[in-house]
This record gives sequence, structure tokens and C-alpha cells, in this order.
Amino acid sequence: MTQPDTLAKTDRTRLRRAHERGAFDRATIDAILDAQPMCNVGYVIDGKPYVTPTLQWREGDHIYWHGSSASRAIRASKGAEVCVTVSILDGFVMARSGFHHSVNSRSVMLFGRAALVRDEDKPAKLAGMLETLFPGSTDTLRPDHAQDIKGTTVLSLPITEASAKVRTGPPVDDDADYTLPIWAGVIPVETRTLPPIPDPCNLPGVEVPAHVRNFRYLG
Amino acid sequence: MTQPDTLAKTDRTRLRRAHERGAFDRATIDAILDAQPMCNVGYVIDGKPYVTPTLQWREGDHIYWHGSSASRAIRASKGAEVCVTVSILDGFVMARSGFHHSVNSRSVMLFGRAALVRDEDKPAKLAGMLETLFPGSTDTLRPDHAQDIKGTTVLSLPITEASAKVRTGPPVDDDADYTLPIWAGVIPVETRTLPPIPDPCNLPGVEVPAHVRNFRYLG
Repeated sequence: MTQPDTLAKTDRTRLRRAHERGAFDRATIDAILDAQPMCNVGYVIDGKPYVTPTLQWREGDHIYWHGSSASRAIRASKGAEVCVTVSILDGFVMARSGFHHSVNSRSVMLFGRAALVRDEDKPAKLAGMLETLFPGSTDTLRPDHAQDIKGTTVLSLPITEASAKVRTGPPVDDDADYTLPIWAGVIPVETRTLPPIPDPCNLPGVEVPAHVRNFRYLG
Repeated sequence: MTQPDTLAKTDRTRLRRAHERGAFDRATIDAILDAQPMCNVGYVIDGKPYVTPTLQWREGDHIYWHGSSASRAIRASKGAEVCVTVSILDGFVMARSGFHHSVNSRSVMLFGRAALVRDEDKPAKLAGMLETLFPGSTDTLRPDHAQDIKGTTVLSLPITEASAKVRTGPPVDDDADYTLPIWAGVIPVETRTLPPIPDPCNLPGVEVPAHVRNFRYLG
């Protein structure tokens, strides 16, 4: 029985790897970063870890995030080692044993030293944030006030020390369990946008602009 | 003009607080933890921060998470200071200026020392995980193998040092900007489950059980 058993285990390992894999290719990493603006920035204060949710956006080989220059998270991350993680839940994976229950998900971890975006580059970066997260909106808005930009810090991290993890597909059970009459499968999770809700303070006659009608979020 | 200006600013501050508030009450914190099993665990190795996505579940006054006893995240978190964050994106908030664009979201940060669940308590905790994340499934599944439980570490954190942040509602713009003919509003984000996808390896005639048909995920 050793030989078939060994073969089965190899098959199982291959199957498991096919569904749950670490990935380091930029296309996979970029796609996950672009799919979910909410990220979690990890930083250290007095030897203790902090994880603060914020928005990230990607421009080429860097991600960026911003905040009030006075905020603890920004002050502790600036010039310091950080870990920025993006994670997306795609489904609940129900196996034939509790042990092999899982979730389908996509995640990216980025590591490195958070660099401060220089004052002279801030307006362009903040404009880039707007166009990345709210494409097409810039020209329709009241231009930024200089003092608002002044009080904002923008940080960046290169996408160099990075890894992605992706799990897709059905559960992977122990070989012996596939003969059991137990339902197994996946309950997919979908994230989508709903129709826009206008601010009750909008002036009469202001119509929903094209960039709002066409807004696409592919979480 | 000073007086009206001051009044307006007070109104604005009140409005902003109503939409974006820090919360420390347990009901708010518990509701967010219960709404989103994906969390991010922050821990420190050699002075550097790491943020690892994993699943958390709550039982009363503690959250729990688990992993392979061999994993780096588990080994570095065990008995150490951690920060566990749950964050949920609820909408894109489009204001009259780029500066006041935001997202509606709910998040919780928990701080403390991750405690190791003792070996004798692990089976009950892992059973609790299954019943919390996949209610009603336990009795339908192949019971756990002792060696699977043995290789798993369960960690816990009390919900004591905790804070929540919730933003809801329309954008909050500068007072002067409400006279501008610019569309403002919210594009809500909804997370929902889709109909279950059976594992192609399910035995013929195995029907979708009640706990799968009734599965509810309220992210």
C-alpha cells in the first residue's frame, strides 16, 4: 500500500499547491494592490506593533498612503520599517473535515522603509491618489487649498520586498475523506458597489457626473 | 465676520464628529469583529513590524486565531505583544474637494499579549472556531484527527485594550464649498455571499445541507 499512498500524497500536495500558492510575480501583486485600496500599515513604537487601516494607492513601482502630519501612525511610520498588508476575502471554503475548512483570499505583504514624499512632490502625489481611487474626478472638484496639503504627509514604499498569497478553488481534503458522503464546496464572497447616494446638501439641478456613473471598484 | 465663521466651524466640527467617530463601547467593537473574520495580526521580529492576514473569531471577551505551530507568524506572536486589526470598507465618499474625499469604513484595533491556548483547551476552541465561522457544520463533518490538532496553535487576545473607528454618511466639506455646483455623495460598497459552488468531487446524491443554504455573512 505504500506506493499508491505515496502517489496519492504527491497528487494531494500538487492539488493543494495549485489552490493555495505564494506568489512573487509583479502582475499578481499589482492586481491585488489595485483591487483593494484599504490596507493595514504595521509599524513599531517602543518595541510594540501597531496596525493602522488606511488607504493605499499604487503608481508604478511604489505604493503611497497619506494622513495628517500630526497622526501617530504617520509620525511612527515616516522613515521607519513598516509592513503594509492588503487582504481580500473571496469565499468560505467548506471541506469534509473542520481542519481543512479555509477561506479563498488574496493578500499582499510589502516590507521596507517608508519614505517621506517631499513637499514639492506632494501636490502631484495627492492628485495621483485622487485619480487612482476616484478616476475622472479631478477636473470637477474645487482645487486643493495650500494649507490642506501642508498639513498632510504622504509616505511611499517600493514594491520590492513583497509577497502575495492567493487561495482559490474547492477545498482540498485528506484522500480518505473523498469517499465520505459530506457536502463540500465554496460559498463565494463578492464585493460590489451600489448605486451612488447623493449628498442631501447637493445644490438643486446638480447631476451625477460621468465619473460617478462609471465608477468601478473591483474588490 | 468672525462670529458667524466660528459658529460655522463649530457646526462643521460637530457634523464631522457625527460621521467619523472613535468608539470604545463593546457593542460597536464586537459587531465589527463579528462582521469580518479576516484580520491582520501585527507582531515584531528583530524590531521590525510584520502584518499577517488570518482569520479571527470571537468568543465572549476574547478573540482567537490559529495557525500551523511551525509558522513564523504564530511563533513570533505567541506570548508577545500584538496588534490585531479588522477593517471593513463600506463606501467611497466623494466630496466637493479632493481633500475631503474619504471612505466609509469600520475598523477595530486590539492590543495586548497573545496568549497560547493550552493543549487541553484546543479541541474546544477549534470547535468554537468552526461553529462561529461555519455555524451548524460541526455535526456533518468528519471529526478532527488528533495529530491535526496537535500541529495547530491557537492564540487568544482579550478585548480590553481596544478601539473602534467608524465613518458613515455623506462627505463633510468646507462650509464655503456647499455653494459650489459640484456633485457630492457616497458610492456604497456591499459585501455579500453568492450561491454555493459544490466541490466537483462531491459524491453523487449529496445534497446541500441546511447550514450551507442558510449561511449568512454580514461583512
